[in-house]
Amino acid sequence: MRIAFLGPHGTFCEQALGSVLDDFPGARTEPAASTTAALDALRAGDAELACVPIESSVEGAVPATMDGLVETPPVVVIREILLPVRFGVLVRPGTTAADVATVASHPHGEAQTRRWLAAHLPHAEVRMTPSTAAAAAAVADGQVDAAVCAPVAARHYGLEMLADGVHDTGDAVTRFVVVARADSTLPAPTGTDRTSIAATTVNEPGALLAILTEFAIRGVDLTRIESRPSKARLGTYWFFLDGAGHVAEAAMGEALAALHRRCTDLRFLGSYPRATVPPGSTAPSPPVAPPVPGQTPADHAAAAEWLHALRSLPSRAAAGPVVG
Amino acid sequence: MRIAFLGPHGTFCEQALGSVLDDFPGARTEPAASTTAALDALRAGDAELACVPIESSVEGAVPATMDGLVETPPVVVIREILLPVRFGVLVRPGTTAADVATVASHPHGEAQTRRWLAAHLPHAEVRMTPSTAAAAAAVADGQVDAAVCAPVAARHYGLEMLADGVHDTGDAVTRFVVVARADSTLPAPTGTDRTSIAATTVNEPGALLAILTEFAIRGVDLTRIESRPSKARLGTYWFFLDGAGHVAEAAMGEALAALHRRCTDLRFLGSYPRATVPPGSTAPSPPVAPPVPGQTPADHAAAAEWLHALRSLPSRAAAGPVVG
Repeated sequence: MRIAFLGPHGTFCEQALGSVLDDFPGARTEPAASTTAALDALRAGDAELACVPIESSVEGAVPATMDGLVETPPVVVIREILLPVRFGVLVRPGTTAADVATVASHPHGEAQTRRWLAAHLPHAEVRMTPSTAAAAAAVADGQVDAAVCAPVAARHYGLEMLADGVHDTGDAVTRFVVVARADSTLPAPTGTDRTSIAATTVNEPGALLAILTEFAIRGVDLTRIESRPSKARLGTYWFFLDGAGHVAEAAMGEALAALHRRCTDLRFLGSYPRATVPPGSTAPSPPVAPPVPGQTPADHAAAAEWLHALRSLPSRAAAGPVVG
Repeated sequence: MRIAFLGPHGTFCEQALGSVLDDFPGARTEPAASTTAALDALRAGDAELACVPIESSVEGAVPATMDGLVETPPVVVIREILLPVRFGVLVRPGTTAADVATVASHPHGEAQTRRWLAAHLPHAEVRMTPSTAAAAAAVADGQVDAAVCAPVAARHYGLEMLADGVHDTGDAVTRFVVVARADSTLPAPTGTDRTSIAATTVNEPGALLAILTEFAIRGVDLTRIESRPSKARLGTYWFFLDGAGHVAEAAMGEALAALHRRCTDLRFLGSYPRATVPPGSTAPSPPVAPPVPGQTPADHAAAAEWLHALRSLPSRAAAGPVVG
């Protein structure tokens, strides 16, 4: 099995993927040039899985991933990984802070260390790279003097750490997803799952409200909503929704079927176990809402059983006057 | 009056601002190094207005602008501008396509011309710059060979156009906003206005639904919803909402007051005239939903008058047994 990840070697994405590799025995990991390239490799059959970042607690959604998820042929998330983010400043051996005239990072890395950079490397010119690891590679190549990136990149690129823990917000977490082609296996429900969808709707007042209502009236907690332009016209959007629950469960299944009736386009993007922040990090896990009374899986099962009993009564032709 | 804009000279932002400058007689425009810097200049009193991009029909929200809008002291949008986006490839005079080994652009410019670049400059290394105009400046300085940017930058930087109209999506539009300090004047209602807010809410099922319902039950069409991380914790967000209407109108005013009671934090980000795409562009303007029957401003006025009449009846002490 081949797993494409957002490369090059030494990215946070490789680090996140590494933390779950035990669950994919025999997998070979292969760096891709971008999240788009990783998803393209998956769709083309050059990889069986792709691991890409989808959301940061500091920088928000990763647009290329969201746009890539709704392309065709369809793909689904089968796993999420929460990685506490720790940035270091890596330099060629012997470089001091006074030597640093240029510093490179991915825009998210730059955004998460802006205050530190302004305070400690105020005169360094900041350059953007497609990934934090590409910044480390640029340091190794001599193109820039320092990289803001994952400390793990030091080993890959023969660099040393000028400073560690330089992120401005202490408890930043990035969420990664492992994606498969939609015709592969669906992860079994665990009881604490998340389901992701993307939907478009008619442009009329209350259209989005109606979508959210389909979840709320069934007690499904929506954990995330994002919009991305449909690209057809300013003011028209894909809505990306994450909800607590599994498509195999009654409440989520009913809500998704209702959306299928209601939305102009609907993509099922997967049901998969909800991850928590790994032990040892001070970063909080995402909040989990308590179940809504009367809307638990047991409540749904009891209601379905009651309905089934009603429908199981012997049927006969409707009584009433016969007009002949 | 000073208006800070996302610089340097030659950006789409300067072009957008230029299209409305007649409405700000005597204004002096001043480039800022970033959207954050433009909003900082406004807040510090170094400018009376700031013009920044907020949304692209291709690339979606501009995170730095949204994060900047909810900082303090408060600021409000007083004007929006829709600019059809036309990209050119600018080079130093005499450069041919075969000479182009490196091409620079802002990430949004790169994203909107990716297919063209892959087809016409497949071997060029793509570099990111903080703005499309900075890419043009980098060409002028000899740091890169070509820039994907606004054609207007050619004049500013003494470059020539290698190719024009290189955007992959024909009708891309970027939305810019002119922002003022919140203690300045509120634009008068025009009948076709937009109101922007940002809100946070408790993390429980249906919390966002309740916010949207406050608009929907009053017939207010929401034209946009975006989420940005609160930065405190993965899974907690600021919701940015745009709705059709003006805070001075009954329906919008009632909805905002309801949100004030309901939200954990609420920022009024302005009421301002809705812009359309300028004549001559093939790009469609954002869709406008028809008014909801029974929820027009006239309906609200009639209902308020009816309620007022009820409350204007002579009052007297409640009848009933007096316990003494």
